[in-house]
Amino acid sequence: MGFRESLEEVCAVEGAVAASVMGFDGIAIDTVTPAAPSVDLEALLVEYGGILSHVKQAAEILQTGKVNELSVGTDRLTTLLRPINPEYFLVLAMTPDGNHGKGRYLLRVNAPRLQNEF
Amino acid sequence: MGFRESLEEVCAVEGAVAASVMGFDGIAIDTVTPAAPSVDLEALLVEYGGILSHVKQAAEILQTGKVNELSVGTDRLTTLLRPINPEYFLVLAMTPDGNHGKGRYLLRVNAPRLQNEF
Repeated sequence: MGFRESLEEVCAVEGAVAASVMGFDGIAIDTVTPAAPSVDLEALLVEYGGILSHVKQAAEILQTGKVNELSVGTDRLTTLLRPINPEYFLVLAMTPDGNHGKGRYLLRVNAPRLQNEF
Repeated sequence: MGFRESLEEVCAVEGAVAASVMGFDGIAIDTVTPAAPSVDLEALLVEYGGILSHVKQAAEILQTGKVNELSVGTDRLTTLLRPINPEYFLVLAMTPDGNHGKGRYLLRVNAPRLQNEF
C-alpha cells in the first residue's frame, strides 16, 4: 500500500479535512484534502511539524520515552500528528466536531504501515 | 470551588498522575499528584507550558481560532493541557493506559470553572 492509499484510508473518518505525510524539514511527500480547508493548510502543517519537533526534543531531555502522538485543538480545526520514523510524520486535520477518536485510531494503525514505504 | 478542589476533581480518573494550575510563565499555582510521577514532573510542566505558548502563537498567526486543547502522548506519559485564560492553563498528566477520554472531559468542564478563581 502506497502513501496515497494510506492517506485516503486515514481520511475515511467523519470530519477529515486533510491528511499528509510530511518530513520534519517541512516538506510534504503527499497530501490528501477531502474537504476545502478554511485555513492556510500548508503553513499550518509546517508550523505544527516544527512544534512536533520541539515536543520530540523535550521528550528526549525529560526522558518521557518516544513521542507517539500530538494533538492540537483550536476553534476551527483539530489536528492530530504521529511520527512515522525520525524523519517523517503523519498528520490528520479534522473539523472540531469530527470523530477524533476514530482519527487517532486510523493514525495509530497507518503510521507503522507507512514505515515500510521509506 | 477553589483550585485544590478542582484539581482533585480533575484527578478523579483512572491513570491520573498529576494535575496542576500553571502560569504561562512556568510557575505553578497548585499541583495535585495522586500517583508518584516517573519523570521530573516540574520540568515537564514548564516545558509543556512553553510548547502550549508556542501553539497559541501559531494559532494566532494561522488564524485557526483559539487553542482549546493540547495533548502530548509519549511512551511513559500522556499529558493534556487546556488554557484557562491568557495567563494560566490547566494540565493533567496520565499514564498511557489511563482513561484519556474522561481526562479530556474533566479538563473541558473544570477549565471554565477555574476562570472564576482569578
